[in-house]
Amino acid sequence: MGFIKKFFTVLLLSQFVISPAHAGSEIAILIEMLHQNGTVSDAQYGRLVAELKQNKMLLEEKQQTIELKLAEANDPSDVKVQIKGGGLALSTRDGAFTTKLGGRVQVDAARYGGEPESGDGTEVRRAYLTLQGTMYHDWGYRLQYNFANTGSNGKAILDAFIDYKGLEQANLRVGNFKEPFTLHEATSDNFITFTERAMIAAFSPGRRIGVMASKAERNWTWAAGLFGEGVSTRGGTNDEGWGISARTTYAPVNEQGRLIHIGLGANFRDSGGANAVRFTQRPESHVTDVLIVDTGIINDANDIWKWGAELATVQGAFSAQAEYVSNRVNRSGFDNLDFDGWYLETGYFLTGESRQYKNGRFGKPKPKANVGQGGIGAWQLALRYSTLDLSDGLVDGGEADVVSVGLNWYPTPTLRFTANYENFLKVDGGPNDGNEPNVFQVRSQWAF
Amino acid sequence: MGFIKKFFTVLLLSQFVISPAHAGSEIAILIEMLHQNGTVSDAQYGRLVAELKQNKMLLEEKQQTIELKLAEANDPSDVKVQIKGGGLALSTRDGAFTTKLGGRVQVDAARYGGEPESGDGTEVRRAYLTLQGTMYHDWGYRLQYNFANTGSNGKAILDAFIDYKGLEQANLRVGNFKEPFTLHEATSDNFITFTERAMIAAFSPGRRIGVMASKAERNWTWAAGLFGEGVSTRGGTNDEGWGISARTTYAPVNEQGRLIHIGLGANFRDSGGANAVRFTQRPESHVTDVLIVDTGIINDANDIWKWGAELATVQGAFSAQAEYVSNRVNRSGFDNLDFDGWYLETGYFLTGESRQYKNGRFGKPKPKANVGQGGIGAWQLALRYSTLDLSDGLVDGGEADVVSVGLNWYPTPTLRFTANYENFLKVDGGPNDGNEPNVFQVRSQWAF
Amino acid sequence: MGFIKKFFTVLLLSQFVISPAHAGSEIAILIEMLHQNGTVSDAQYGRLVAELKQNKMLLEEKQQTIELKLAEANDPSDVKVQIKGGGLALSTRDGAFTTKLGGRVQVDAARYGGEPESGDGTEVRRAYLTLQGTMYHDWGYRLQYNFANTGSNGKAILDAFIDYKGLEQANLRVGNFKEPFTLHEATSDNFITFTERAMIAAFSPGRRIGVMASKAERNWTWAAGLFGEGVSTRGGTNDEGWGISARTTYAPVNEQGRLIHIGLGANFRDSGGANAVRFTQRPESHVTDVLIVDTGIINDANDIWKWGAELATVQGAFSAQAEYVSNRVNRSGFDNLDFDGWYLETGYFLTGESRQYKNGRFGKPKPKANVGQGGIGAWQLALRYSTLDLSDGLVDGGEADVVSVGLNWYPTPTLRFTANYENFLKVDGGPNDGNEPNVFQVRSQWAF
Repeated sequence: MGFIKKFFTVLLLSQFVISPAHAGSEIAILIEMLHQNGTVSDAQYGRLVAELKQNKMLLEEKQQTIELKLAEANDPSDVKVQIKGGGLALSTRDGAFTTKLGGRVQVDAARYGGEPESGDGTEVRRAYLTLQGTMYHDWGYRLQYNFANTGSNGKAILDAFIDYKGLEQANLRVGNFKEPFTLHEATSDNFITFTERAMIAAFSPGRRIGVMASKAERNWTWAAGLFGEGVSTRGGTNDEGWGISARTTYAPVNEQGRLIHIGLGANFRDSGGANAVRFTQRPESHVTDVLIVDTGIINDANDIWKWGAELATVQGAFSAQAEYVSNRVNRSGFDNLDFDGWYLETGYFLTGESRQYKNGRFGKPKPKANVGQGGIGAWQLALRYSTLDLSDGLVDGGEADVVSVGLNWYPTPTLRFTANYENFLKVDGGPNDGNEPNVFQVRSQWAF
Repeated sequence: MGFIKKFFTVLLLSQFVISPAHAGSEIAILIEMLHQNGTVSDAQYGRLVAELKQNKMLLEEKQQTIELKLAEANDPSDVKVQIKGGGLALSTRDGAFTTKLGGRVQVDAARYGGEPESGDGTEVRRAYLTLQGTMYHDWGYRLQYNFANTGSNGKAILDAFIDYKGLEQANLRVGNFKEPFTLHEATSDNFITFTERAMIAAFSPGRRIGVMASKAERNWTWAAGLFGEGVSTRGGTNDEGWGISARTTYAPVNEQGRLIHIGLGANFRDSGGANAVRFTQRPESHVTDVLIVDTGIINDANDIWKWGAELATVQGAFSAQAEYVSNRVNRSGFDNLDFDGWYLETGYFLTGESRQYKNGRFGKPKPKANVGQGGIGAWQLALRYSTLDLSDGLVDGGEADVVSVGLNWYPTPTLRFTANYENFLKVDGGPNDGNEPNVFQVRSQWAF
Repeated sequence: MGFIKKFFTVLLLSQFVISPAHAGSEIAILIEMLHQNGTVSDAQYGRLVAELKQNKMLLEEKQQTIELKLAEANDPSDVKVQIKGGGLALSTRDGAFTTKLGGRVQVDAARYGGEPESGDGTEVRRAYLTLQGTMYHDWGYRLQYNFANTGSNGKAILDAFIDYKGLEQANLRVGNFKEPFTLHEATSDNFITFTERAMIAAFSPGRRIGVMASKAERNWTWAAGLFGEGVSTRGGTNDEGWGISARTTYAPVNEQGRLIHIGLGANFRDSGGANAVRFTQRPESHVTDVLIVDTGIINDANDIWKWGAELATVQGAFSAQAEYVSNRVNRSGFDNLDFDGWYLETGYFLTGESRQYKNGRFGKPKPKANVGQGGIGAWQLALRYSTLDLSDGLVDGGEADVVSVGLNWYPTPTLRFTANYENFLKVDGGPNDGNEPNVFQVRSQWAF
């Protein structure tokens, strides 16, 4: 601010210094002329000059006052305050400091049909508060907490990290955050097309404590990190597990309303002293605790290798994305296990909007006209096929296939109401062999 | 803001466009005259006109600069920031967006006399953070969390909802919030007359996930909603319970310092797959965990019907309110059970303030003169009789009667210090049959 | 604001009232003279005077507009908003109200060597959100919560108090806050020299619910309070414990870069109905749960007396502090037990900064030049010897001695990266008799 203030002070001063000297100079000249002409007598001339001088002084004083008040008026709100999207966003005029307080609440209700028995009910799916910002130009920070999940010690901490943005080559991050893997995980749960991510989320590494380097340009991104365990994991006398995760994306076409996206991810994890893993999945619905597929605990699991392939496109109101994830468990004294899964989902905005995309992930939709401002918001239809196979060798976790239809209504960029119907085509093997459950669920969401 | 900025720009421009053209026009006219008179020669006239023209330009430039600075000064704080009541309240000038961050801390200490044995001690009774606001004119949101109660998964989430305020007929709400029932529940615990609500709070339905329609005018309110279970209830394989709640109030007199309030509430709940209910109550004090009356678990309870009647009045510094709640448990294979209770409480502001009332509930008191601004705050004396009967048929939960006196000090609208003495007249039946405990408790509270 | 607005309105009005009357008065005088001289005819004179009058009116109008816009520009941001240090700090211009939202995240990784076995790993050590401020001049409030520690009911509430600052004699505080005892505890964990406090923190009373009076001047401070139990302690049928704590400090030299500090503390605690105590300590590292010394539960412990002595100095970039704490457990039917410990730690800023000190505790370092603003931040080397003796009489908790070296990097006042290496010289007695573990740990911290 100092700079800006000084700039204007100088600007204004120069104006005022120049101007008063000249303003009304024609009257001074005229008086001079009339005196020389003899039209104005010496006595009259003296009185006029004195008057002129005094008025000039008064004018200068007044202008200095205005100038001071203007400088003051443009100074105190050094900080720009915005609440347009809800929450609270502040930034200094030079952008060196920003602070943002945001929140998110998702409330669900679900009705379950077919086998296995699942209790109908309601749930606060997520209730987040987020404090994030920039400090001293080059540093970023973020603390995000899930109030809907506080049972386990510290488990409810989501993002908790520091960024260093001062290098041209890469952004550096340290703290607790998501391992970079899959498009679904990279996209906020606020902006995924269905209520829940597809079943391959069973393989998602989630958030862990670590360090990461990353870089994002218009047409490509990469990220690679080294990670320990999650926030709630305490090692006791065993060493905690550790892992490496990397993801790169390429978007040969990336314009408003037109996108082609290709992505690749790789993830390695050493299971640490525990030496055991387990993969499970709910029926793409979180109100119930029933697991539709479940490997049970797999012992003697030394490490896990995952890789994932991503494809996505946006063509105007239409969008589609597909991902495949393969997950190998390397065991000692037993055969290795290969699990995998994939999904294909499409969406179509009846109201003509396009999915937003940036930095290798989808973002906040922008309705053409908001409810409350004369519009009906954005309406989107969606269709998904999703499959997950957790059976291999002696481990029979089961394979599930499900088709889902969805309707999303975004009355404003900060609100979303979702209805999903899911029909399981079949469950082969695992704890629910032969079952064909279905789910109807709705969600109310505010987020910013 | 765009509108306001444009308006002032046009206003200022019109001023400046008019003014420079005319400002000093008398000197132009005079010069013209003197030239015509021959007092001023052609050469002198030329020099004067050139000077006049240049000065006019300089003046215009200077005025444009001022105008720009003024427009800028009146632009950036598009958002109005207030912290007068503590916390933080922001709103855009058009009111379409608001954000409010509030908090609440209540710290209690209690000393228990008589039987049953209760440990003296201290407690942080409530520690809330609240983020609420308005988006795009018609939408409201609220997230409120109790940091003093995080043991159970998600249990500490209080309000978590979205409002739609765009309809004239009713306000619509979806999420987690209080079922509309009784005046005591409708009034924030910050503004109830005693430290704790009366014992009939044993029948309070509390907060649950649901949808509600409501409407509030100066002289009446109504609210009706459909609810599932609370945030921490997980159905497992049983369906969760559900219920309906409605409340209406009528205030034939509602002026500052004068109120007559009548209210009626009805509440139905299907107990869901669990099919069991339990009613308990502490001795109107929360530091202890000892239950003064307790039905124990009542099985085969299909559903519960409650109804409540409310009366309240304010006459200057004097206020009174009374409520009766009846609670019927319908059982299969057993006789139905009828429990009930009521209370009458009165208050008197020694310093002359009146209780505040709006939308069918009591609100924040306004001391006539705050401590810290030369005053002594507001002082209120209070007296309450409260009774609860949890015995019926084969269920012997006990009946308790208690008289309480209280003193409230509000040094400022945001602070309250409370001292309560409670004397149990008798406990008939239940786990504490024949006991006559007493309680002395104090509370410190800041809230906004 | 009302005052300020009025002041400027009057100031500006007076300017404008004076000025327009006189501005251009020389032309009025000249016209008058020329008319008297006969140079200007009566008709011409009339036209000139009319023009003069109209221009004066226009000028006045214009100036009133500017004045109004200036007043408005200086009005709305009655509240000053700052985010320079991260987070959010607001205050009214008169200082009667302030609101500050701050946060803190500390993320640790540790590697353990030697015996006992401790699992290497990572941890979010602290994740705080703090809401604090001033209300109505004389009242303060604070709510601070640790999101990294929510397992136990309410345990994660840190500060939750009200201050009354309206007395000259003392500041009064009620709520949950730290008992005043030792320099280490008085200093925020953000600004202690090593990652963890020295082992005598085993005797720290921590935060409890109570009342306190205190006073801080440039050269001395005192504080004394009466306390119940902590937030998570529920008495059941036993009375909770209670205690008294007092601390006083004297700083005969206290200038920027030069400090001599002496402190004394005393602490009494009645163990309440539980009548049992236990003292334990980790190896000055928190990622592991392994206790290096541990008395086990000591029954029949009626009360505990502690006293502490503090010495500290700052000499330019060099600083040193030492503390001794003695801890006596008075038992019924057994011999009393005496435990104690002390530490000496020194630091040296390679980049020339000095430790900051105020109100009897160390505060936030200020790097001479921040990273992101052309500097390299502040770099500090540190060395510590720390010892703790938990063995006396029949209780063999063990004695441990450890030497630590540390490196602190403060890129900005809000960030800190720390690396510590600790080498245990010996552990005598207790659960780890004869062990000589070592620890290497790093921490990333943002805090404001």
